[in-house]
Amino acid sequence: MTAKDTPAHSQKGKRIGLNGHVSEFDDATQVAPDGSAMILNGWDISGNANGGYLMAMAGRAMRNASGRPDPISVTAHYLAPGKPGPVQIDSTVVKSGRRFATVSAQMHAGGKPMMQLVGAFGDLADVKSYEHNASGPPDLPPFGECRPRDREQGDADVALSDRIDVRLDPAHLGWARGERSGDAVMSGWFAFRDGRPLDTLALLMVCDVFPPAVFNLDMPPGWVPTVEYTVHVRAVPAPGPLMCTFRTHFVGSGFLNEDGEVWDSTGRLVAQSRQLGLTPLL
Amino acid sequence: MTAKDTPAHSQKGKRIGLNGHVSEFDDATQVAPDGSAMILNGWDISGNANGGYLMAMAGRAMRNASGRPDPISVTAHYLAPGKPGPVQIDSTVVKSGRRFATVSAQMHAGGKPMMQLVGAFGDLADVKSYEHNASGPPDLPPFGECRPRDREQGDADVALSDRIDVRLDPAHLGWARGERSGDAVMSGWFAFRDGRPLDTLALLMVCDVFPPAVFNLDMPPGWVPTVEYTVHVRAVPAPGPLMCTFRTHFVGSGFLNEDGEVWDSTGRLVAQSRQLGLTPLL
Repeated sequence: MTAKDTPAHSQKGKRIGLNGHVSEFDDATQVAPDGSAMILNGWDISGNANGGYLMAMAGRAMRNASGRPDPISVTAHYLAPGKPGPVQIDSTVVKSGRRFATVSAQMHAGGKPMMQLVGAFGDLADVKSYEHNASGPPDLPPFGECRPRDREQGDADVALSDRIDVRLDPAHLGWARGERSGDAVMSGWFAFRDGRPLDTLALLMVCDVFPPAVFNLDMPPGWVPTVEYTVHVRAVPAPGPLMCTFRTHFVGSGFLNEDGEVWDSTGRLVAQSRQLGLTPLL
Repeated sequence: MTAKDTPAHSQKGKRIGLNGHVSEFDDATQVAPDGSAMILNGWDISGNANGGYLMAMAGRAMRNASGRPDPISVTAHYLAPGKPGPVQIDSTVVKSGRRFATVSAQMHAGGKPMMQLVGAFGDLADVKSYEHNASGPPDLPPFGECRPRDREQGDADVALSDRIDVRLDPAHLGWARGERSGDAVMSGWFAFRDGRPLDTLALLMVCDVFPPAVFNLDMPPGWVPTVEYTVHVRAVPAPGPLMCTFRTHFVGSGFLNEDGEVWDSTGRLVAQSRQLGLTPLL
C-alpha cells in the first residue's frame, strides 16, 4: 500500500520512510487522533490478532497521547481476542513529568474491553550510564542459516509470517519434527518482510511473534493465551535485523512465564519482555 | 495493635488471624470500602514508603474491588514518592471474567497521582497443571545463619527493617563491607517480624523489600527509583519463611532490570517479579 493510496496516513502520527511507501506495520497500526483504529487481516494466528501487534497499535495511540518519542515500559492485560475490524483506543495521560509521561489506556471494540494498558513514554536518544551485562546476545547462526517461521504450524495458520521475517535457530526447532529438547528456549532473528526499519514502537510487537518457548517441552501442545505482557524498551535499535531469545523458566498451577531479550545488530540490548501465559489445568 | 484497639478494622477486608491481633502489615495496608487508606510511618526507607508496601495497599483495594481472593499479576508505575498520610485508591473493574477479574487503579494524594496500576485477580487454590522448573529455590544457608537487613544502610534509614525480617545470604553481602562481587544477585529469607503468615497479598510487597542486587556492582551507589514493578503471583505460599532471590542482568542507558523469584518453605515457586529501575545518567 502506498502513501498515495492512503492520503489520511500523513496526518496520523510518526511514519518511517520506506522509499515513499507506508510500511505494512505502520499501515496496520495507524491510529487516528480520536483513538480509532482498525485491526487488519494478516497479523493473526488462525484469526486472532497477534498480541504484540495489538500492543504496538495501542502503544502508538499511547505514544501519541504522551507526546514523547519512545515507549519505555508498556504493560497490557488481554481481555478478549482481537478480530479484524474497527477498535477504539482511549488514552489518558496520568502524569506528564520531566523524564517520562505515564499513560493509562484501554482498547475496546463494540463496547467490550479487549486490552487494558499502562505505560511510560520518554526519549531514549543518546542516554548514557553505567553499563553491566550479565550475558550477551544469543549465539545465533547467520540470518540465512536460520529457518523462516512457517505459515503453517501444526493446526495453526500463522498469517503473521507473511508480514514478518522470523528466522529460528535450527537448534530450537526440534519440536517442528516432533523432537522436543526439554529446554524451553526459542531464539532467532527478526526483520520486517517489507524492509521497514526497526524502531522502539516495533519492539512492542517483536517480543510476541516467536513460537512459544514451551514448544520445546513435552507439555500438551496448544494455544498459550497471554494474561499479561510487559515490554521494557531499553534503547533505540541500530539498523539491521534483531537477535531475539525467549525462555520459559517455570510452568505450574496453570501458568507460565516467558522472558524475552532483544538485541540489535551491534550487540546492544534494546528490549526485555515478560509474559504471564496460561496452560491447561489438569 | 490489637483488634480491640482498632474496632474499625473488622469491617475493612480480609484479615489474617494473629492470635486475635491485627498484624502490622494488615494494619498498615487497610483500605476502607471507599478506597481511602493511610500510609503509615515505619514502612519507609529514609521517609519514602517502600514501593512494595504501596503495591500491597493498592493491591488490597483492587482485590476488594475484584471480589477474588488472589492477585495474579499486578503492575504499578510509580509517579511520586509515598509519604505518611492519607491516600485515595480508585479502582475500576475493567472486566469480571470466569477465571480472572481485571482492575485498573490509581493511588493519589492531595490531588496528585502517586501510582497507576493494572492487575488481574483470581483464585489460586488447588490449581494443577503440567509442571516444569528450569531451576529451583536459591541455595541459602539456614535462616539463623543469614544476616538481618540492617536498619542502617549507608546513609539510608531502613525503617522497614523493624517490620520485616529479611535475612540476607552472607555470600551476597560483600557490599556491606565495601567488597563488591561484581555479580548482581541478592538472596535471602523473608518473614514478618510479628509472625504474620505469608499470603498472596503479602507477596506483592515481598518482591520489593530486599537491598538492590546492584549493590554488588561497582556502579555509583545511591537510590534506585522504580519506574515500573510487576509481580506474578504463582501459588499460595505454604507456612514458613520464604526463600527469595533477586538478580539484575542488564544496566545501561540509565535503566536496570531486577528480576525476583520467591519460593515457599516446600520449595514451590510462589512469585516472580520484575522491576525497571533508574540509574544516574552520565
